[in-house]
Amino acid sequence: MAGTDHDKPLITGGPAIILVEPQLGENIGMVARAMANFGLSELRLINPRDGWPSEKARAAASKADHVIDGAVVFDTLEEAVADLNFIYATTARERDGFKPVRGPEEASRRLRTRNDAGERTGILFGRERFGLSNEEVAMADEIVTFPVNPAFASLNIAQAVLLMSYEWMKSGFGAEQTPFAGPDVMPASKEHLNGMIGHLESALDARGYFRPAAKKPKMLDNLRAVLTRPAFTLEEIKLLRGIISSLDYFSPKTPRGSGNPERKAKVDRDRHGKSGETVKDEER
Amino acid sequence: MAGTDHDKPLITGGPAIILVEPQLGENIGMVARAMANFGLSELRLINPRDGWPSEKARAAASKADHVIDGAVVFDTLEEAVADLNFIYATTARERDGFKPVRGPEEASRRLRTRNDAGERTGILFGRERFGLSNEEVAMADEIVTFPVNPAFASLNIAQAVLLMSYEWMKSGFGAEQTPFAGPDVMPASKEHLNGMIGHLESALDARGYFRPAAKKPKMLDNLRAVLTRPAFTLEEIKLLRGIISSLDYFSPKTPRGSGNPERKAKVDRDRHGKSGETVKDEER
Repeated sequence: MAGTDHDKPLITGGPAIILVEPQLGENIGMVARAMANFGLSELRLINPRDGWPSEKARAAASKADHVIDGAVVFDTLEEAVADLNFIYATTARERDGFKPVRGPEEASRRLRTRNDAGERTGILFGRERFGLSNEEVAMADEIVTFPVNPAFASLNIAQAVLLMSYEWMKSGFGAEQTPFAGPDVMPASKEHLNGMIGHLESALDARGYFRPAAKKPKMLDNLRAVLTRPAFTLEEIKLLRGIISSLDYFSPKTPRGSGNPERKAKVDRDRHGKSGETVKDEER
Repeated sequence: MAGTDHDKPLITGGPAIILVEPQLGENIGMVARAMANFGLSELRLINPRDGWPSEKARAAASKADHVIDGAVVFDTLEEAVADLNFIYATTARERDGFKPVRGPEEASRRLRTRNDAGERTGILFGRERFGLSNEEVAMADEIVTFPVNPAFASLNIAQAVLLMSYEWMKSGFGAEQTPFAGPDVMPASKEHLNGMIGHLESALDARGYFRPAAKKPKMLDNLRAVLTRPAFTLEEIKLLRGIISSLDYFSPKTPRGSGNPERKAKVDRDRHGKSGETVKDEER
């Protein structure tokens, strides 16, 4: 199927493809090849099991060297999405929660609209063995899933990336674009969203909100889902952090559950935000 | 990406996928897997280089055994298409001739129409190394080609089959469908939204958030705008009120600004919400 024309300019840009703990170098290479075919170029890897760079990945990429050479490795999902404004999570399984579910065609149209408005976007793909965890899905704004045969649903990550990349390319054609009211507000980057969620988590922790402790991960997923779906802008997040700071103002006399004498110092530390920035109450 | 439901009936039928002199068993297996994901089942092989059956093909098919077991081998293209009424040839290169050229989406729509009318259809895919010969393309009724990046056009046969199979599946839907849907996001009634905002206003008032007093109406407008735009559902508002209650739990020692000895009673009153309903922490 080769038909490369080396005189044509390479198409780049578009959403980042983010692979969470990919296992096989061959799959990473096939992902790069799929991306290059449809004009995507930004590959992010979170803890690739077999290390990076990978000769197996390069071989399987079939000369998509610009994607392989440009791939960036991260330790955590939070770091990998810190600069992005909007994220899709791909999943084959239905999840609890509050997130809209899109097919690849509609998801690509929405990504294209956001991309054209100057937003930075990304798509998460999970591990070969078991996909994305609920906690990872909770980090995304919306879910994308594929219209597969229910009796045989077995897309690997390279196939899933191929389909999303293909729909991304198609979404750029005038003929296939339908008039679509895009958001007139740009969601804050995930760094700011996560700073706010971390801030709130600390304040709630100090009050014994997360009880019983075993339920904390699920409660935190729900909290994250509720605060992610609105796609708050940076201005909105500043206002909300001012509110959290204000609510968090009084020191506890008797925290719920067991007392914690070290809590005051912790709150003072947290009041300045997890990501280091000082929270200014700019709305006042 | 596994999400197979073994209770669902296997989707079969649709166009035959015809591989002309495929070389690697792994690729044949990946083709079978791609077909099964999107409800195609009829695989025809013309002179597979490494023979048939192939254990490598079966392994790569990832349990698409019904496709592998049903594959039929032919000696010539003429025999392979003898019973078909209409054929597409896939190619990445422009060819001389008079044949209509379609994208995968339109080609799939046309195949669907013919299939529904009782025609037997097929799609030809060429060799890994050099695709289909001009003579083989000439056997087809129309050409299908993929909207790839002109500077990097390198789809392998399994990827090409995946895209055609995917478009075939989509062509059967009126609108794009997903195997599961997100929640119906119905915004809560304004009574619930206003109950939450009132609850929050009281808690913030007690902490001297609205300063100077002359600015309170504007600050309240901003707060209301931020909390209205997300169109929170009732479930989300319940979760958020649980959070506000938790943050509001500690009694003030020294409120910001001027002290207010009557504040404690006010907070107890407000904790039950302005609209009268009791706040239950239902997320716990």
